[in-house]
Amino acid sequence: MPHIALPEGFPGITAGFAFRPETAGPMRQLVEVLLRGPSTLSSGEREMIATFVSTRNECEFCQASHRAAAAHHLDGNYELVDAVRRDYLTAPVTPKLKALLAIAGQVQQDGKLVSAEDVARARHEGATDLEIHDTVLIAAAFSMFNRYVDGLATLAPSDPAAYDVMGQRMAKEGYVRPRG
Amino acid sequence: MPHIALPEGFPGITAGFAFRPETAGPMRQLVEVLLRGPSTLSSGEREMIATFVSTRNECEFCQASHRAAAAHHLDGNYELVDAVRRDYLTAPVTPKLKALLAIAGQVQQDGKLVSAEDVARARHEGATDLEIHDTVLIAAAFSMFNRYVDGLATLAPSDPAAYDVMGQRMAKEGYVRPRG
Repeated sequence: MPHIALPEGFPGITAGFAFRPETAGPMRQLVEVLLRGPSTLSSGEREMIATFVSTRNECEFCQASHRAAAAHHLDGNYELVDAVRRDYLTAPVTPKLKALLAIAGQVQQDGKLVSAEDVARARHEGATDLEIHDTVLIAAAFSMFNRYVDGLATLAPSDPAAYDVMGQRMAKEGYVRPRG
Repeated sequence: MPHIALPEGFPGITAGFAFRPETAGPMRQLVEVLLRGPSTLSSGEREMIATFVSTRNECEFCQASHRAAAAHHLDGNYELVDAVRRDYLTAPVTPKLKALLAIAGQVQQDGKLVSAEDVARARHEGATDLEIHDTVLIAAAFSMFNRYVDGLATLAPSDPAAYDVMGQRMAKEGYVRPRG
């Protein structure tokens, strides 16, 4: 049961958004720019970074919903997303994405853990400053979203099919249009 | 030295904001609503929650700047802000704020640590659902801001006077108007 009287019928973070539209607006805008805005990283790659951070934070709702969103950006390839969640170092993704995931993993714990070596490796694998910036901010933003979802004890649907539908909408329609 | 080529002359988070205006906009909006928007918690109280979380995360720039903003909302009472940073349980603040700080302290670590008892105590001390919601989100949001500032290795001014000027501007002019 949620810690406060959130409106019913809204899964996970959408209950917090419905409860407090004044903060929902900028949070939706931020995730839209980070995961779906113009970028040299694909939305599939960015959703995998978000899923990876949410998995490390053990946020059930966020990892399941962004896992599905990532898969829908990747032609339904849930296997690839799960390989990254399990052990990104052995997952069949580019060396650049692995280097960015390493940075995201540091930020998930503490921003101060990101080392000059982590950044040099990402740059060596072809990452731009903007890609490094956005990786840091995606990891930081999901440190917020995960805590928000769990700190209110929002309800996470138990049916995996619910997340597939959610992920499809997140991938196709995005984060800014209110759920109707 | 920052990890990426951030524009020079901007302290702390403002360097990230100047580098990436598309994400700066929603981040500024969010903190404006949370710390300065209409609320039954004073801006001084909300800035103390932000300072407390930033102190626990050991984010030098964020704790120094929000400490100053809090003090400027509290007639310059830096002693009170520092008492909260040191040990909020013995600080001369209301039992309600202490209960909210306890929730913020849990969220800073992991949202799942917030217990029904933490929330019941806050409610017993007079906190509303909206105040509990905003406390969770302030703590979650500063878990993002702190990681963003540190994950980019932004520069923190070493002169305490610089933070006093900054805090005054944050308290009086807010977060949305771009620094000019």
